[in-house]
Amino acid sequence: MVAVQGVRPFVSGYLPEFESRPLPPSKLGFGRFSLGNNAVINLGFCRGGNVRLRSWIIKAMEESAAFLTKDCSAISGKDRQIMSCNGKSTNVMWHKSSVDKFDRQELLQQKGCVIWITGLSGSGKSTLACALSRGLHSRGKLTYILDGDNVRHGLNNDLGFKAEDRAENIRRIGEVAKLFADAGVICIASLISPYRKDRDACRALLADGDFIEVFMDVPLQVCEERDPKGLYKLARAGKIKGFTGIDDPYEPPLDCEIVLKQMGDDCSSPCDMAETVISYLKEKGYLQA
Amino acid sequence: MVAVQGVRPFVSGYLPEFESRPLPPSKLGFGRFSLGNNAVINLGFCRGGNVRLRSWIIKAMEESAAFLTKDCSAISGKDRQIMSCNGKSTNVMWHKSSVDKFDRQELLQQKGCVIWITGLSGSGKSTLACALSRGLHSRGKLTYILDGDNVRHGLNNDLGFKAEDRAENIRRIGEVAKLFADAGVICIASLISPYRKDRDACRALLADGDFIEVFMDVPLQVCEERDPKGLYKLARAGKIKGFTGIDDPYEPPLDCEIVLKQMGDDCSSPCDMAETVISYLKEKGYLQA
Repeated sequence: MVAVQGVRPFVSGYLPEFESRPLPPSKLGFGRFSLGNNAVINLGFCRGGNVRLRSWIIKAMEESAAFLTKDCSAISGKDRQIMSCNGKSTNVMWHKSSVDKFDRQELLQQKGCVIWITGLSGSGKSTLACALSRGLHSRGKLTYILDGDNVRHGLNNDLGFKAEDRAENIRRIGEVAKLFADAGVICIASLISPYRKDRDACRALLADGDFIEVFMDVPLQVCEERDPKGLYKLARAGKIKGFTGIDDPYEPPLDCEIVLKQMGDDCSSPCDMAETVISYLKEKGYLQA
Repeated sequence: MVAVQGVRPFVSGYLPEFESRPLPPSKLGFGRFSLGNNAVINLGFCRGGNVRLRSWIIKAMEESAAFLTKDCSAISGKDRQIMSCNGKSTNVMWHKSSVDKFDRQELLQQKGCVIWITGLSGSGKSTLACALSRGLHSRGKLTYILDGDNVRHGLNNDLGFKAEDRAENIRRIGEVAKLFADAGVICIASLISPYRKDRDACRALLADGDFIEVFMDVPLQVCEERDPKGLYKLARAGKIKGFTGIDDPYEPPLDCEIVLKQMGDDCSSPCDMAETVISYLKEKGYLQA
């Protein structure tokens, strides 16, 4: 197998039932290799949404190993787990590989990503998350909302509100959001996430472009007037300590993908805001495979 | 609103763009209620995959609250979060509700659930997980594999291998699997999970039937002969402590949904095993909405 610079080959699975699976029309090349162990590997190369090589194992015995001898120095990341390269010889160790992100995206006709909604309490994060999930669902897209409060009832029920627990809360939601994006889902994370370094750590988990930070830019005064959960009142009364915006800082994003400004009466409707995000997703190709 | 015994009503969202959304053909009833705050609530009741009532808020102002005065003692679970019942009066607190599990299942034409594969190291958990994801993907179903080892690289990278860390590893995977099932995904969790109480705790997170425990019933001797990662060798040499099957117990399930037995040469192929699980899912209605 010849690895091509700048493209990413990968081995896509053990598919006896897919023997006659047609290659997509965007196929660039095709090759058949006889391996040991009664196995045959068919590699189809195609240019997908991202420039990449795709490869299919069409008929291979389970746990067979294939030894190909061409250079594969361009193979990286996940592929290295499958193909271990040793100088100029390639040891294609086939680990019963599975359905991958690209397969799931094709099934769903969308690209997995994380929409990270950050902002003060009462800035409309959950409202946007809901409007967004509705708007995308009506277009046949699969979304899932990870809400800071809700996740605390399950996965993060061992965490409190001290500084390190808050950071861990965000870290875990970032990791779970990454799994959802890998599943092909448009994952909507909605949590205050006041510190830049925590948000940036979550961004770093994802491939370039797949972390879409949306800042609900609403003045503290507006949020405090809304006070939908009565939390600002409690914080002002000193009954909640370390409340973001009152006695704990909120660090607005410096360079996020989308800013949704709301000033006093000049409020966009949740639907309008959702449409702004949806337009962004469409433009960036996330609403197709 | 009249609640009907044995059916489960819920409020499905703030949907200005869905004003003319047709009710499904399985609709049983329909009612319109004028609320305060310029809001109108249309409730459509239908019998879905599970016998339940569905209700839609079609035109309601955001964050309005509706007070209905009929008995709703049959309302439970999720619905109670939306409708808080107080004796005979119903305070319908409407929380900008979102796309829910049923909506996602309709989109995906499947039911979210967790297939929990448990067994010794080398018993074929990952192999089954992959064959299963392939088999389901080829039927157009969305799956996602949570692999014990892989999750340790991300979400659970703060956990070691001492007893409480192992339990926490399993707890978190259970919680994440629950989120995936809620997203409508067929989530395949593949991890040794040697203790009954840890597995049962994960089972308890899910609705009845949605946790499908698959036991890879392979004798220790067979697993040790395979030793795909060389871990048994290390454990026998005393280089790994507390290794399941060697110096730590494996508690086989007492009453799990599926047992896949493998004895010596009498091995089913991964595809055959996957088909066993897929047949189960089909029979139980998980491969349709």
